[in-house]
Order: sequence, then structure tokens, then C-alpha cells
Amino acid sequence: MLRYLTAGESHGKYLVGILEGMIAGLTIDTELVNRELSRRQAGYGRSPRMKIESDRIEILSGIRKSESIGGPIALLIKNRAERMEQLPSFTSPRPGHADLAGALKYNRRDLRDILERASARETACRVAVGSIARQLLREFKIELISHVVNIAGIKADTRGLSFTAIKSRVLRSKLNCGDQKAQAAMIAEIDKAGKEGDTVGGIFEVIIRGLPPGLGSYVHCDRKIDNRLAGAISSIQSIKAVEFGLGFSVSGKRGSEVHDEIFYKKGKGFYRHSNNAGGIEGGMTNGEDIVLRAAVKPISTLRRPLRSVDIVSKKPSRARFERADICVVPSAGVIGEAVAAFEIANLMLEKFGGDSLEEMKRNYQGYIKQISK
Amino acid sequence: MLRYLTAGESHGKYLVGILEGMIAGLTIDTELVNRELSRRQAGYGRSPRMKIESDRIEILSGIRKSESIGGPIALLIKNRAERMEQLPSFTSPRPGHADLAGALKYNRRDLRDILERASARETACRVAVGSIARQLLREFKIELISHVVNIAGIKADTRGLSFTAIKSRVLRSKLNCGDQKAQAAMIAEIDKAGKEGDTVGGIFEVIIRGLPPGLGSYVHCDRKIDNRLAGAISSIQSIKAVEFGLGFSVSGKRGSEVHDEIFYKKGKGFYRHSNNAGGIEGGMTNGEDIVLRAAVKPISTLRRPLRSVDIVSKKPSRARFERADICVVPSAGVIGEAVAAFEIANLMLEKFGGDSLEEMKRNYQGYIKQISK
Amino acid sequence: MLRYLTAGESHGKYLVGILEGMIAGLTIDTELVNRELSRRQAGYGRSPRMKIESDRIEILSGIRKSESIGGPIALLIKNRAERMEQLPSFTSPRPGHADLAGALKYNRRDLRDILERASARETACRVAVGSIARQLLREFKIELISHVVNIAGIKADTRGLSFTAIKSRVLRSKLNCGDQKAQAAMIAEIDKAGKEGDTVGGIFEVIIRGLPPGLGSYVHCDRKIDNRLAGAISSIQSIKAVEFGLGFSVSGKRGSEVHDEIFYKKGKGFYRHSNNAGGIEGGMTNGEDIVLRAAVKPISTLRRPLRSVDIVSKKPSRARFERADICVVPSAGVIGEAVAAFEIANLMLEKFGGDSLEEMKRNYQGYIKQISK
Amino acid sequence: MLRYLTAGESHGKYLVGILEGMIAGLTIDTELVNRELSRRQAGYGRSPRMKIESDRIEILSGIRKSESIGGPIALLIKNRAERMEQLPSFTSPRPGHADLAGALKYNRRDLRDILERASARETACRVAVGSIARQLLREFKIELISHVVNIAGIKADTRGLSFTAIKSRVLRSKLNCGDQKAQAAMIAEIDKAGKEGDTVGGIFEVIIRGLPPGLGSYVHCDRKIDNRLAGAISSIQSIKAVEFGLGFSVSGKRGSEVHDEIFYKKGKGFYRHSNNAGGIEGGMTNGEDIVLRAAVKPISTLRRPLRSVDIVSKKPSRARFERADICVVPSAGVIGEAVAAFEIANLMLEKFGGDSLEEMKRNYQGYIKQISK
Repeated sequence: MLRYLTAGESHGKYLVGILEGMIAGLTIDTELVNRELSRRQAGYGRSPRMKIESDRIEILSGIRKSESIGGPIALLIKNRAERMEQLPSFTSPRPGHADLAGALKYNRRDLRDILERASARETACRVAVGSIARQLLREFKIELISHVVNIAGIKADTRGLSFTAIKSRVLRSKLNCGDQKAQAAMIAEIDKAGKEGDTVGGIFEVIIRGLPPGLGSYVHCDRKIDNRLAGAISSIQSIKAVEFGLGFSVSGKRGSEVHDEIFYKKGKGFYRHSNNAGGIEGGMTNGEDIVLRAAVKPISTLRRPLRSVDIVSKKPSRARFERADICVVPSAGVIGEAVAAFEIANLMLEKFGGDSLEEMKRNYQGYIKQISK
Repeated sequence: MLRYLTAGESHGKYLVGILEGMIAGLTIDTELVNRELSRRQAGYGRSPRMKIESDRIEILSGIRKSESIGGPIALLIKNRAERMEQLPSFTSPRPGHADLAGALKYNRRDLRDILERASARETACRVAVGSIARQLLREFKIELISHVVNIAGIKADTRGLSFTAIKSRVLRSKLNCGDQKAQAAMIAEIDKAGKEGDTVGGIFEVIIRGLPPGLGSYVHCDRKIDNRLAGAISSIQSIKAVEFGLGFSVSGKRGSEVHDEIFYKKGKGFYRHSNNAGGIEGGMTNGEDIVLRAAVKPISTLRRPLRSVDIVSKKPSRARFERADICVVPSAGVIGEAVAAFEIANLMLEKFGGDSLEEMKRNYQGYIKQISK
Repeated sequence: MLRYLTAGESHGKYLVGILEGMIAGLTIDTELVNRELSRRQAGYGRSPRMKIESDRIEILSGIRKSESIGGPIALLIKNRAERMEQLPSFTSPRPGHADLAGALKYNRRDLRDILERASARETACRVAVGSIARQLLREFKIELISHVVNIAGIKADTRGLSFTAIKSRVLRSKLNCGDQKAQAAMIAEIDKAGKEGDTVGGIFEVIIRGLPPGLGSYVHCDRKIDNRLAGAISSIQSIKAVEFGLGFSVSGKRGSEVHDEIFYKKGKGFYRHSNNAGGIEGGMTNGEDIVLRAAVKPISTLRRPLRSVDIVSKKPSRARFERADICVVPSAGVIGEAVAAFEIANLMLEKFGGDSLEEMKRNYQGYIKQISK
Repeated sequence: MLRYLTAGESHGKYLVGILEGMIAGLTIDTELVNRELSRRQAGYGRSPRMKIESDRIEILSGIRKSESIGGPIALLIKNRAERMEQLPSFTSPRPGHADLAGALKYNRRDLRDILERASARETACRVAVGSIARQLLREFKIELISHVVNIAGIKADTRGLSFTAIKSRVLRSKLNCGDQKAQAAMIAEIDKAGKEGDTVGGIFEVIIRGLPPGLGSYVHCDRKIDNRLAGAISSIQSIKAVEFGLGFSVSGKRGSEVHDEIFYKKGKGFYRHSNNAGGIEGGMTNGEDIVLRAAVKPISTLRRPLRSVDIVSKKPSRARFERADICVVPSAGVIGEAVAAFEIANLMLEKFGGDSLEEMKRNYQGYIKQISK
């Protein structure tokens, strides 16, 4: 079992994470982690803070001579903008944020006590954890990519593009978008919203390929892979929706149109010509790519602040403005990859067990051989 | 902490559930549980089996003189159609089902070993567990209702209807639908699909009202209420998508249109004029109704079977047909209420603690008073 | 991951258990379970109730054609003495029992609401669950036996006896004792205490053999096998102490006397001449037998009742007497085997993974080969 | 729910911990944490390393203006002796340590990869976490102290001493011992063992006072407080035994001698004249002091090394010697206090819920009032 905890506030000294349960013998490349941290910070429409922070990870434990040794892996990410203690108090909660409910729940009168932890800054840690999970998955040739499929209502068209094609386009795109034409229109919308002191949302898609069939299970509801992935994706700040494969559009389709017929070829094994299920049947991977999409709401910190109420005086007020982004959809996608990578790595460990890379690989290969019979 | 396990196969002798962690002193009405079990089985478009089974719960423990005593509550639901051992083997997996991936994962050659547990029959237990959770929530005036908002692409229009209005319409509707006109069209589509040996999907919505602010938390990703609800809903068979509040439609909106401005009135406390957030901000309830929607795929057991492959001979074949439903969207909604009720009850217990109803209520009221200051 | 919940009261209709997470393909013999249930009920010094109940298990799910299929295994054990609703209330808590603290915690005024679940009757379920876990362990040639090493201060001497010798003596002994002479003295003490309306305690030992090295881990405190075993054993009613290997007697020894030197022989691998560690080093199995002992207090239901206080009137009173045992040490040992078997099975699954017996065995054998290099 | 993860190696740069689930509004005094860290390092018989390290905690998150804010609390403890990457490899496992089983499990050939994490250095983190838990308990007037009751077979006599008396003696003692005469003899034994290149073990006792009745529960085996405490204590390095109250000595006593009769006095509530149960009945606190004892084995790193086998060459060898302690019993007691404090704090939160100190206290006081009726 793989698990992790993260800690740290938006303007605290450090973000800290501990990833526990990693097998021994995995070569961990901190530069790959840093690359994912950069991807999280990039993306057209991010706030100037993203230029302030240029996140780099420091691994404090669990690794010796570049290899994991089985112990917990502690991560540190320095906040450049450390000044939490000095930052001003505020008492007007921002609609769409944790501010109001958080202040009631934790009985705080300074909303900074809420927003510092509720901030999506925390996801840097989750990206770092996910990036290590990903380095494990790479050993099994499992890969993930996210791409932006909608910003401000503008849809990207990536029909017919392979995983590789999408990936290479994403890595060259400012918006992690696989459709250049749509991207231009998206950028225009972001610029427009920015000028008007407003923000825009969108949709990203995560694709995971190279999965063996049988991760997750139908035997108990909390073992289903869709349970775990939907939960993980929904725990990303600003996410309001998740779907797999055809997702909401199944509602307008007949059963005969939806289900992916099964074929077999020697050497290749079972396969499908369609992937409407998004790689998941019965709460398990079916061997096809997992395809999931999630909706990201427009960021709630607006330069033109919304109506609110002062929690102390109870008088009408305006929500406080903090420096913020116009569009975070590409970043949310990168975080989506990370949390999905963690869940998949965990399911791999549950299925294959093992305490060293050699052992886990041997177990994995035994299974692959078994199901190829 | 509240937790449960369920057990039982579709054609086994019994379904069994154990709900652990319930406080003492709660009056539990088994007839209320049976009523929810009936609601799960009803709905236009269900298979004739639903007439065979008329589920009734037997509570085997945890209750004395109609009151919970703190111990685990064991539930038994008898299967009328008990004959698992006699049912024929089959080896052609049904696309859209757990059959193929399950057989590979668990190394079985008889697909009945998979489908018996993967079947949605198991959800009867989850409905029973949810119904008990609901009886706890009722003590805090928290209520849930689901309604069908889309079948076969036909949308119900319930704009402007109150919780009470929707509830009363749903309880009189064959399809748990709040829009009579849409319902007629939905029924026509179900009939048509049935005649053509096909199935239809749709979308249900769950509304939860009476929630205090501050259930769930932003402090750690796995404490977020959207994480838990999205996970629970996604663990229902056939669900391919979940959304909260505006859901996917946030992608086409500006931040200034999305966020729910905050108001305050003495006696009433903080409130909103809109509920685009679906009752959740920062991974917590904000005091408004939770509103979530989920997409249900058309059932994958088709009378006109799809192409498949025999898992033993590896020869092309047709997927086996088992007696089945044409449309399960209303049932899925009832299950959605149940799993949501469980998650809310659990979060209530986490926040308020307590081992007896008296204690939990006292703690709850103390908090309500605190946040009203 | 293997997990379970149990439910049921001492005089309720049924005891119920659900064991979740078992691999598929394990042949499960209910007669072996029944045999363990009988062993739990036997033992010189048990109450006449043990003759009333003759526990037999009914498996309601998770098995088809005698083989596990991967789904949760639900167990039912009928209580012969079902009459909980009719049993009289009482309000004088018995010292040594859950009665008083339970009534305060759960806010009950009838102590029967407490004792019905607190009773050790519940352990029948844990023995059944443990017996299934044991059938899994048997596939890996892991065996457990408990024996009584002390009753009423009389010590059994089993120095020099092999696992097999102890086992064969235990199975022929009324007290699960490996020393016939000591046993005679123990029986005399039990008889004497019984005549005087009193009860006696003692110590049992559990030995587990056939373990691979490396179950459990030092990498995080909650992964240590001694953490899990000590916790599980301590959760048995009436247990007041647990020790591994030399246990408390390490306090009087030097380091040079305590640690088990390491030897190696081709074919045999690493081995020791002593086993002072009781098979556990660094929170892991080291390949030697696990040896643990636990102290069982004399049962607190005395025929000569102790001083107490009526919880309603607050007046001094005498603790209620319920039909009870004089000595439960042999039974406690059988329960000890069961809970230990569960923990070991769980650690085996964590280390070796797998969803079918074939897969788990293949992974296990791969590891055994790896560490023999 | 309170939880934590720790990370870090003995000669790594830092030890890291994250404590998640703490309520908001608790004033946290880092000097109190540092004091506990010092207590862990002190004690006659510790190695010279203890002079090298003088542990101080840095809190990186979860606190603002000296108060907890609800978010995870990350802790950093700097290792002065950071040089893990440079330290020599070794291949001769030390009997009594994790070395051999760890190398087999994690497939490592350099035993330093094992010992660095298996080392008790890690417990500094657990002491820090426990010290924060303790600051929560202090708000409810719950206190803990440990004292050494046996070293090298020499028993301390503290019969009749109150909690306060023991505590004040412990804080002035080099060995955390409440019996000065015994202490002198213990020191002589430590000196003697040290001269002979050997080590000694012993027994410590933890006393917890101020507990409300009803922490933990009998309703499910994994909720019992003895389960949790025995597990936590057993997870401390070198612990081979745990007992509560009379512990192993119950085996030589009659029921009528063992159980603590119940009395009542207005204003004082229910109480006992004896505490043979060690404060636990039915898996719950009964309101009396929890008293537990644990046996600490003599440290396995001996200056006169034991026989071993080189894991690479498989040739007989001698176990490697690393700078080490002669006696760690007092330290183990301090760690025992810390892990017990964590478990109690967690059970307090489970029972009383609450997200702020104000809320938790209000809930607590409501319960105290309820049970005083």
C-alpha cells in the first residue's frame, strides 16, 4: 500500500510531503520531478506568482545513491514568497473559496488561517508525489498525459490523434492543448477575460496507457478504480465534474452503441475497436487506455470582487482580492495526471505486491504471462 | 467513524451487510429500510426479476428494543432466486461488464464466478445501509432526494422547483422524474428501445438539504467532501460521470458568473441567492443544498448480443444474454441517495463525534450555536 | 488487503462476519472451520453454555463450488440461546467487565445493552474468520498452534518439545496443555476455584511455523508485525499482557545472551540455533517460528459477586451473576491462533499480492527463490 | 481522526514528520517539544552520539501566530551527523536487528540501506508528534509519565507513590527511576555491562491520568484501547512485551482478587479502591489511571560482536559494530509516553469530534456533565 500526507501553506516556508510504501530499488530522478513541477506552474493565464516561484524539490529521505531503499520519501519544496506571519488578516470571505465555511468550521476570525492551506499551492506537493509514482509506472511502461479540451467554452478537436501525437503537441503548447487552432481562440478568450478582471474555466482530459487488465475490482465498492480516480480528481481544487470514456454523453446513447465489442488476436490478446468505456469495466482496467475528463471552474479570486459579508461585523462587503490566475486549466490537468499516477501506482502495488523492483516486476510478468495463455 | 462491508452474489442465498460505528440510541425503523429497498426495485424499464424479488431486510444485530445499542448492525436480504450453484457456466464475456477483466484478474474460466458478484444486485445492501444512515441524518433534519433529469437524451425541466416539490413529484412518478411531460417521452423511448432489444441510459440528480456548513475539509485532499461523494457515486455500477452544481457547464462560464455571492441576515445567518457551487466550496459543505448529478450508461446486457470472444477457445462468439433491464436510471438515483447518505452520516460523525444520539445532538447544537454568534 | 467486520450479540439470533479481500481459487472446507469453532468451545472449566451452543458456520457468499471466487465471504453462526429481547435488564455493573464504562459511553441504563456485545461470544466469529485465513496459510505450509503454559500459577514445562510434539499433545488435552503432569494440577485448581465460586486465569502461547522472512516491516511504525500481532492479541477479551520470544525476561539478561546468532547452510539458507527473538527482528519475520504468549485474566463473572453500585439509584449493590466459565485460557489460546492467522494472512497478501491462488503462489515462490540465491 | 507519517534515516539530513488532523486553536509550544526530545536523548547508558545530537524541532506548517490552524503540522529535526551517502557499506547482519530480514525483503546487498531506517533514531519524530498530541491532552488535564521499573533484573520499588511523586522523582533521575536505591544498583550494572562490551535491558511503566471513562470501545475488536496501545508500544524498537495493570501476574490470581470493585460518591462519581485492570475494562478507559509496562531488550549492537554470516559471500563472519548505547530503557519509556499520547489524543478526537479547541472542549464538557448525572 502506497500512501502520502502533504503539509504546508501557500506563504509558509516550505511545502512538505511524505510518500510511504514505495518499493526499494527504484531509481528516482529528481529532475523528472522538477520537470513536472514546472509543467504545473506553466500555462498561459497563470498569475505573476508563477514567475516568482520556480519550484524545485529536495528529497530528504528514502533514497540512497539515487535509489529508493523502501523507507518513506520526504519531499521539501521551498516557497519563495515566505511571509505568512506578516500577511494581513482579512475578514471578507471570497465566494467560491473555502474562506467562509472554513472559518465557521475551524472557528477562526482571520480568513488567512483558512486560505493559506486551502490554496491550490498545496498541489505542488501532490505533483511531486505523483511524479515519483510515475517513475514507478514507467518501469511497467505505463504512461500518462493530460491535455486541455475546452477553455471558456472553446473545444479542442483531437479526434483521431494517437497518445503519442497528443503528447508531443501538448509538450509544445502553452495551454497543453492538442489543437492549435482552438488554442489560439482560447488564448484570445483568456486575454479578454483578464482585461475585464474576470477568469475562465475549462475541461482537461487525462489519458493513461499501457495498463494491464484487472487493476481495481468489483468485489467491493471501495475497490473500484473509478471510485478511486473520481475521488482523487475531485479532490483537486476547482474541479466540479469528472467523467470516464463517453461520460455524460452516455445518457443520449443506446446500449448497442455504447459497449465496446471484444476481439482477440494471438500475440495481441483481447482488444477493442472502440473505447467508449474509457478503459474501465466493472470497476477495473480492461487493458484499453483510461480516458477521463474533468471540469475546472473559473478561479474564484476576481480582480472585480464579488459581494460578500464581513464575518466579524456581519456587514456587507466586497471579497478580498489576492494576486491570482486567469486560467488554471492546463495546470489542473498536470495535477490530474499526478493524482491519477498515484492511484494507479497504488493499485499496481496492491495487485502485484513486492518490496523491490525486481520482485514487483517478476510478479507483474508472471501475471502478464498467465493472462496470455 | 462509520464503515461497512457488503457480501453476497446475485443468485446466492442472501445479501449480507455489516454497518459498524453507529451511535447508540437511534430508533431504527426497518419499514423505512424496506421502503428504500422497494424504491430501488421500482422504476419503469426494470426487468421482470424485480417482480420476483421484493426485498425485505432482516436486522440481525446492533438493535435491541428497536434502538441501536452501539454495536455493528448486520443486515440480511434474502434472494428469492437462489440457485447460484445450479446456474450454467458461460465463457463469452459481455462487453461493458466486469466479465472479461474479472476473469483475467481472478483467473477464472467460468464467467459466472465474476458476474454473480459484479452484478448491481449487490446495491440492495448499500441501499439498506444508506437507509440506516439516513435515519441518523433525519435526526438532524438532513434530507436527500434523487430525481431523473435525463433518459435517452430527453431532459426533464425542473427549474424553479423546490426540494419539497421535486420530492413529492418523484414519489408519485414511475421514473422518479419531476417533469411529467418529459417523463411521457422518456417512457416512449424506453418502450421503443425495449422492443428493439436495446437499452437506454440517462442522468439522475441527488439533492441534499439541511446540511450544516463545515462537513469535509480542505486541509487534506482525502478529507474533501467532493472526493468522498464523487468516489461513492462512481462506485455505483454503470456510472460514467459525476458533477457538482454547475458541473461541466462551468467550462463555458466566467468566474463572475459562477461564484455564489455571500449575504447575511440575522437569525438566518450566511446565505446565497444562487447555488452554482452545488453546496460545496473548498471541499466542505457551505450550508446550501448539495446538488450532484451522475450519468448512467445503458445497461450492457442486451437482448441483441454484441460481438465477443470465448475466453477458453478464443473463438469469436456472441455475449451471453441474461434477463435484464432496459433502463435503470431511477434505481441508480435511489442508490445514489443511499451512498451519499452514508458519506454524509460519516462526515457528521467525524465532525460531531459522540457515542449516543443525545451526545451527538448536544455536540451538533453547540456547533450550530457557535457559528450563529 | 484482507479485512473483516463482525456483528452479533451474545443472545442475539446470529453472529455474522464478513471477510473481504480473499483471493479466488482457494478451496474452503467448512468442516475445518467448524473444528476450530469446537476447539474454541471446548476446554476444561467452560460453562454449561458451551454444551448448549455447538457452533457451526454457514457460509453465505464468496464461495462457489467449494472455491473462493474473490468476493466477500459472509459467515453466519446461529446462537442456540437466542432470547436477547426477553432477557432481564440489570443495572449493577460487574467489575472487570465493560458494563460501567460502556453504559457511560453509550448512555444506556440497561447494562444488558452493553454486555451482549462486549461478551466474548463474539470471538466465535473471529475464530471462523481466522480459520479461513488459516486455510490460505496452509497453502504456503504456514501452521499455528496454541498451548496453555500456565493456569492459576501452575506452569507447564514444554522445553525441548517440537512444534509437532506440542501440537499432538494439545489436540489430545482437555486444557490444550503440552505437559500432562502440570495439567493434572491445573484441573485440580480449576475444580477448587469452581467450588469456591471463583475463577482462574493463565497464560497461553501461540507458535507459528513455516513463515518466510520479511513479513511486516521496519519502514513505518504501523507496518511492524509485532505492532499488528500485539494489537490483535490484546483485542481478545480478558487479555492483559502479550510478549514475544523471551518477552519480559529480556529485562534480566545481557545483550550477548539475548540475540540469536546467524548461521548459513547451503540448501537450508540462513538459520539460528536459538529463537529468543520469537521469530521477529526489526518488526519482521526472520524465518524462525513466531512465539508469543498472552496472559488471560480470571473471568470477571463470579458466582460470589463483587461489590458494585447501581447505575440508576447510585446505591451500593452486588454485581449481577450470569452463567459463566471458571477458566477460559485454552479457548483464549484458540482465539489467539485465529487472530494471529488473520494478521499473518494479511501480511502475506500485502507482500505477495495476487488475486488468485495460482498468482499468489507464483509470486511467493519467486520470492523464495530470490532469497535463496 | 489524527494520523501521522514519519520519514528519515539515522544519518540522513533530516527526520521529517507530518501530523494530520489536529484541531485548530491549540497553542503549540515548540519548547515543550524540544524538552521531550531532550528527555529521549538523556539517560545514563546512552552512546556518545547523544551528545552529538541535541535535537530541536522546526515546525514548518500548520501553525500561525503560535496556534494550530487545522492544517497538517510538518516537523523537521536536523541530524547533526549527516553523512549517510559516505558511510561504508557492510554485509554482515547484526543478530537482533532488522539487517538480515530487511536485506532479504527489500533485496538489498548493502545492509546500511536497512539499518539507516530501522534505527531507533526515527523515534525522535514520534516523540515530537507525541509531544504535540500531549499539548492537546493537557487542555483536558490528561497527563502521562513513564518511569523505569527494572534494569538488568534490578527492580524499582515505587509502591504507594502517587503520580505526582513518581513524576517529580523521574524528572530528577538520570534513569527516570522513582527508586533511588534501585537506581544506584542499576547504574552499577550498566557500568559493568559497558566495561564488558555488553548491553542491558529492562522494563518501563507508563501511567496516564485524568482520562474520562469511555475512550476506546468493545463494539469492534479494532476499536479496543488495549489493541491500539499494545500495538503502538510494540512498534517501538526493542520492545518484546507489553502488559496492562496486573499484566502477566493475573495468571496466578483468582478472579475475586483481580477485579476492581466499584464505588460511588456524589461529586466524585464512580471510583475504585484498586486498579488491577490498569484503567482498562472492556477495551475502554474506566476513568482510573492507565498503567502499562513494556520490556526493552538489551541493545543488539554489541562491542563484542556476535557470530553472523556475510550475506554476499555466505561465509561466517562477525556482526558489524556501530557506536551504540549500553542501556536505552529510560529513552524507550519516553518514547512510550509519546506513542501512548498520540493514541489517547486520537481516541479523544474520535469520541468528542470537533475542529477547534473551543468546540472539542464544549463537547467534552457536555459528556462529563452527562455522565455525572
